[in-house]
Amino acid sequence: MKAAILAVGSELLATDRLDTNSLRLTAVLQRFGVELIAKSVIGDDEAAIARELNRRLEEVELVIVSGGLGPTADDVTRAATAQALGRGLRLEESLVDHMRQLFAGFGRTMPEVNRRQAEVIDGATVLHNPAGTAPGQRLEAGGATIFLLPGVPRELDVLVAEHLEPWRLERCGDQHGYERGVLKVACLPESVVEERIAPAYALFGRENISVLASPGDIKIYFGAAGTADERRERLATMRAELARLAGAAVYTDREDGTLEQVVVEQMLAHGKTVATAESCTGGLVAERISSVAGCSPMFKGGVVAYSYELKTLLLDVPAEMLTQHGAVSETVVNAMASEARRRYDADFSIAISGIAGPGGGLPEKPVGTVHLTLAGPGDDDIDHRCVRFPGDRERVRRMTSQLALEMLRRRLAGLPAA
Amino acid sequence: MKAAILAVGSELLATDRLDTNSLRLTAVLQRFGVELIAKSVIGDDEAAIARELNRRLEEVELVIVSGGLGPTADDVTRAATAQALGRGLRLEESLVDHMRQLFAGFGRTMPEVNRRQAEVIDGATVLHNPAGTAPGQRLEAGGATIFLLPGVPRELDVLVAEHLEPWRLERCGDQHGYERGVLKVACLPESVVEERIAPAYALFGRENISVLASPGDIKIYFGAAGTADERRERLATMRAELARLAGAAVYTDREDGTLEQVVVEQMLAHGKTVATAESCTGGLVAERISSVAGCSPMFKGGVVAYSYELKTLLLDVPAEMLTQHGAVSETVVNAMASEARRRYDADFSIAISGIAGPGGGLPEKPVGTVHLTLAGPGDDDIDHRCVRFPGDRERVRRMTSQLALEMLRRRLAGLPAA
Repeated sequence: MKAAILAVGSELLATDRLDTNSLRLTAVLQRFGVELIAKSVIGDDEAAIARELNRRLEEVELVIVSGGLGPTADDVTRAATAQALGRGLRLEESLVDHMRQLFAGFGRTMPEVNRRQAEVIDGATVLHNPAGTAPGQRLEAGGATIFLLPGVPRELDVLVAEHLEPWRLERCGDQHGYERGVLKVACLPESVVEERIAPAYALFGRENISVLASPGDIKIYFGAAGTADERRERLATMRAELARLAGAAVYTDREDGTLEQVVVEQMLAHGKTVATAESCTGGLVAERISSVAGCSPMFKGGVVAYSYELKTLLLDVPAEMLTQHGAVSETVVNAMASEARRRYDADFSIAISGIAGPGGGLPEKPVGTVHLTLAGPGDDDIDHRCVRFPGDRERVRRMTSQLALEMLRRRLAGLPAA
Repeated sequence: MKAAILAVGSELLATDRLDTNSLRLTAVLQRFGVELIAKSVIGDDEAAIARELNRRLEEVELVIVSGGLGPTADDVTRAATAQALGRGLRLEESLVDHMRQLFAGFGRTMPEVNRRQAEVIDGATVLHNPAGTAPGQRLEAGGATIFLLPGVPRELDVLVAEHLEPWRLERCGDQHGYERGVLKVACLPESVVEERIAPAYALFGRENISVLASPGDIKIYFGAAGTADERRERLATMRAELARLAGAAVYTDREDGTLEQVVVEQMLAHGKTVATAESCTGGLVAERISSVAGCSPMFKGGVVAYSYELKTLLLDVPAEMLTQHGAVSETVVNAMASEARRRYDADFSIAISGIAGPGGGLPEKPVGTVHLTLAGPGDDDIDHRCVRFPGDRERVRRMTSQLALEMLRRRLAGLPAA
């Protein structure tokens, strides 16, 4: 089965909005083995929507239209679809009653304009919308199926789950589904990940594995087709093999899992605590750790020792040491880590000092040079690293925080250093 | 003039990628007064691209195609366009030579596959690409113009600036342009901003003003049409009137301006310094300040006093005070602010303690309750605020950091409190 997505709304043709609904719809289509061949965005123009819909109906068996089902004059998806199919629109009084009740539930009277939302195209099945006033509609036309869904993401999701998915299951069963899994990897270059997992391409098919890279973080996506059982089994095999190939760098196989979350969970499981001592990252590591709900038992807190004075005051780094070695040095960052761990009474400490740029670079310490030290859990455990990250200030800071968390994760898990 | 955008690439039909190039192209079209009526995404399928292109040519006078100009077998935009127009493709040897030189410049030999990129459609004008190997092409067909541009954003931008914009200017002059300005507002509810600027709707036209809200931050966009001079004058009038209506809450009129940047610039101009003392925001305020390049002279640093112990250790908050009032209290946050300012020798300090959730809420201090204090520049200057933010942990932390920065901005500018 082939499908097209048509998003309706002039606001989606402006400079600041994209049709993100199409991503959610694409994921559902993939899961059911439906091939998406085109996406388009059309403004609130009845004739233009009708024309686009008719063109897509020449190409595919399923068209999903989102948006334009609201109550105002520029919500023309219902009228446009009726026009495209040469059908009539009738007012469904039971829907009006239902909307009146919804408004009454909020202690409000339904505005008269909302009656438009009860207009149903001849031959359409009304798709009840428990999350809002705009019902969806499903139509059969010349061998193809059209779904009209609301543009509000929350309402779209509900209608997809309650109407689109069951329809597809009933019609085609579960044989043709496609499902994805993910493995996330920190602090490895994309090319290294590609090289490591290359043997899996031959095993599982190049088209079923893709790598998505962002600074210091890489997602390996893998997919499998078949029935629900076949998919589950295949995905488990792929996950295990890819994890084996990618090695210790894999920190999670959860779609919504973050490195900071994994670190916090590990620390809580081990009953350990950490303190941070940051210079160039300016609190980014602390911010990431504390973004995880429930981190209190493992996170003591930290210091952002941006100036020389504060490095001395908060971390007891001797002024002579700073002038002799410079703040961005192994000696200073080790001193910061040791003192943070001791003074703030934590099992581990992370200390960072670097040149995030764009200014401040030196011939021997160019922009992007960063010293990191992980101290603990023993007094003599000092893991120092000096790296040079490419890119702008934001990227250098991001990659530094990523490496700091990854060093801690590996230490906790007893893995070789990153 | 009406236009359509066509993005080519199967990867843009996956679940994790959107055609963001269209936003940049839309901004350019707007500036030149060109109306965008449709955007679509088509996979790497020669026949499908040709069909889509021909359909759009029935509707508009300008079609911008991005992507599919690379050297590999799935880069079929050139062939698809030739097919759509019924024209031939010829290999332009001078382009091959040019690419060979580019590769030689990197010390590499040009792979043979790259020859494809030198294929030019009959009648096309080659658009030199100084940023990559894929040249663009411009074609006239039946009264319409087609631009083929590379999909790599950096290369697209260069070709837009060097070829699309001059073409449009030469053809239509500057009479029909549309340009936008922005005003950014912190820490006001969207409804309040809407209410304040409502008189401007009647003055300048409802359709020329739009409000875009994110947590604690609102953008007021306004636009004007006409020649470059008319636009400039009109935008200046709108900017002044909207700024007057929105009041002191406006912190910048720069498209790329951020609140943290404005605060850092103000502090540098005043020669003042700040230190931070954060609990529930976990370093977010420090992170935002230090994200601004060149902040060193104004940012002393700060502490993330997440635990009770660290509040005592780093900020001298007496243990009795913590147990008596709780960490989330006016007394404690004032003590944190005063001590941070004194101990870290800064002109100002910002102290924050709150319940970001989802756990930790109490009947008298529900989730979202936050105490903030801005201390300085005088020893007795203490500006305390207790607020309750709706939403999840991320939103509460974000809005808190926004209010902290806004309090500092207003104090520095001598404005009434937020």
